[in-house]
Amino acid sequence: MPPTAGPGRSSGPEPPSDELRIARAGLLRVAEPPAPALVAFVAENGPVAAWQRICTGDVPSALLRCVTARCAGREPKDLRQQAISDLRVAARHGARLAIPEDDEWPDATMIGFSMANRVHLPAPLGLYLRGAALPADQRGVVTVIGSRACTAYGRRFGGELAGDLAAAGCLVVSGAAFGVDAAAHHGAIQAAGPAATVAVLACGIDRVYPIANRELIDRIARGGGAVVSEYPPGTTPARHRFLVRNRLIAAFGAITVVVEAGPRSGTLSTANAARDLNRVVMAVPGPVTSALSVGCHELLRTEGVLLAANARDVLEALGTHELSAPSAAPIRPTDRVCGDSARVYEALPARGTTTVREIADESGVPGAEVMVALAELELQEMAGRDGANWRRITR
Amino acid sequence: MPPTAGPGRSSGPEPPSDELRIARAGLLRVAEPPAPALVAFVAENGPVAAWQRICTGDVPSALLRCVTARCAGREPKDLRQQAISDLRVAARHGARLAIPEDDEWPDATMIGFSMANRVHLPAPLGLYLRGAALPADQRGVVTVIGSRACTAYGRRFGGELAGDLAAAGCLVVSGAAFGVDAAAHHGAIQAAGPAATVAVLACGIDRVYPIANRELIDRIARGGGAVVSEYPPGTTPARHRFLVRNRLIAAFGAITVVVEAGPRSGTLSTANAARDLNRVVMAVPGPVTSALSVGCHELLRTEGVLLAANARDVLEALGTHELSAPSAAPIRPTDRVCGDSARVYEALPARGTTTVREIADESGVPGAEVMVALAELELQEMAGRDGANWRRITR
Repeated sequence: MPPTAGPGRSSGPEPPSDELRIARAGLLRVAEPPAPALVAFVAENGPVAAWQRICTGDVPSALLRCVTARCAGREPKDLRQQAISDLRVAARHGARLAIPEDDEWPDATMIGFSMANRVHLPAPLGLYLRGAALPADQRGVVTVIGSRACTAYGRRFGGELAGDLAAAGCLVVSGAAFGVDAAAHHGAIQAAGPAATVAVLACGIDRVYPIANRELIDRIARGGGAVVSEYPPGTTPARHRFLVRNRLIAAFGAITVVVEAGPRSGTLSTANAARDLNRVVMAVPGPVTSALSVGCHELLRTEGVLLAANARDVLEALGTHELSAPSAAPIRPTDRVCGDSARVYEALPARGTTTVREIADESGVPGAEVMVALAELELQEMAGRDGANWRRITR
Repeated sequence: MPPTAGPGRSSGPEPPSDELRIARAGLLRVAEPPAPALVAFVAENGPVAAWQRICTGDVPSALLRCVTARCAGREPKDLRQQAISDLRVAARHGARLAIPEDDEWPDATMIGFSMANRVHLPAPLGLYLRGAALPADQRGVVTVIGSRACTAYGRRFGGELAGDLAAAGCLVVSGAAFGVDAAAHHGAIQAAGPAATVAVLACGIDRVYPIANRELIDRIARGGGAVVSEYPPGTTPARHRFLVRNRLIAAFGAITVVVEAGPRSGTLSTANAARDLNRVVMAVPGPVTSALSVGCHELLRTEGVLLAANARDVLEALGTHELSAPSAAPIRPTDRVCGDSARVYEALPARGTTTVREIADESGVPGAEVMVALAELELQEMAGRDGANWRRITR
């Protein structure tokens, strides 16, 4: 499910006006995301009117104070010029501003943040985007995250998991950080090309952080994947922006898989956001002796968090594959026995009884081994004696 | 909670007669455990009458066939002599036959196998015992098991876990096999002496299997621990006996902890028995790349199976320790933040608002960092702006 190339996936009624895009660029600049008060004001007034009222200072006092730092003493035309400049800088870096009015804007299941949840996670007012469009919806989108300071185990398995998921047609979302993030992007690219992955940045779309991942980020943007940021160009990465960004990483994926995380890792904030957004959260177990698996094990103790030991587990949770693997299947009586015993069980008649010799003939298991198997089956209440004969017990 | 030394923990009305013990020794010999039909016959008739009727062949035909192989063509006095001989052989090996009529017999919560469960797991008719008595009840008794062909990880962690549990006063039950079993016994002994562990054998109490564990088994028996078997002396270990024995290992522990298990490991039969007996089952996670952790991860996907990453997890599940650790505690708002943000949160007044400067003074966090922390707290809906001032949000 790689993102479709370029903006506009259908011919809608009319493309959004330049004024609308300028308004949203301006709104993204006047308050630091997630800015719930601003998001509410825009929802109430519409983006263009909200923007005009902010430019002229015609806003409720609570909101005015929220935007004061970036608007105070500036003329409306300066604010407008700044917004236009943001769009131009983005364009110079091969990026565009995707806005909710665009055809390429993902549907509500992907990006419509529920306000009903315990934690209010406002949706972004727009997203600067390099490369392909975001996927239209969450189907097949998996967020793969983990600590920057991961172990070799986390790096290797994060890459393998992302690769297997990408090979199965999934889109892998991560945060372009060191460690598990980079391993996930690389794994997806190696398996299915750059179109199989999306990187969500915590800085301006014109910035590259960490600088060592420049080649990775450029490769995603130019190779058919997507690089995304809700921050205006020039925004520097800062600690609190990673936390704000993490809600987007969590929202994009139908499932968030945590590969490695220390006990107080920032990765857990993404997992928490995913839970708050009613997304499926999965965690990868690791050695109990590894500090970098402590966070994953804490998650696995949490109700509703699923264990991911391989890509199949994730695909099953996504519901894209048949539930055929033993891991998720209910325990059947024959799951309790194996080898000879299973064959002996099958050799027992569905009705009536039979002798050990007949069972041996039927199953091909030697007589002495048949006795052993029958003892095991009797213990499991799967076979019963009737004198010298044996019968199958079905439950 | 080490087992109390020697038989008889209180002065009951009257010690059981020799005839009663001979009868139960005979019953243990005439049919291969678990022998549900025999157990039911004994429950109906009492052990002495049941034994006499079996010796004279005066039993229902279904039961007669069940005991025929070991009784046919033998005089009652021969059968009685065999039972007496079993008791003598046991005694020569430092063992006695504990029977339900003894004071030292554990209470029903430990050994009374529920017949109401899905799988019928008959209680033993008696238990040959070397060393101390079994504990009176399940309190503080933890079964620690795992694959014989375990990895270094399983061996090391199994030993550590058992040691930490023993040091905390638990009694560690296992099966004296190679691998995790031996590591668990050794770990418990090293931490708290042989009295801290119980070995349940799948062969006669006079036998040692595996032979390489002779020193371990003798050390447990002679050092104040207990070595147990429901098989008459001379019984050889056989595959089906391990499965039958596993139900005892599962029944003894209030909790069964699986340290390592392959996807179809026999260890899983013990875990299944523990679940059937309504015992708590815990599993230790491991690297997803390890075949010996596949069984544990399958267990962890099962509803009700708890994750054990250390002894504290097990102790918490036992309920012997306060639920103080973050792993099991509910997530509080302040769990979502750490360091500066937690200090800034604490510096916010419970009522009213305050300025950044006041927060910096109160928390000792520099002004610039206070801003970062407030942004994080705002995102978590733990702080709100009121103009230039900030207030705490409590949920």
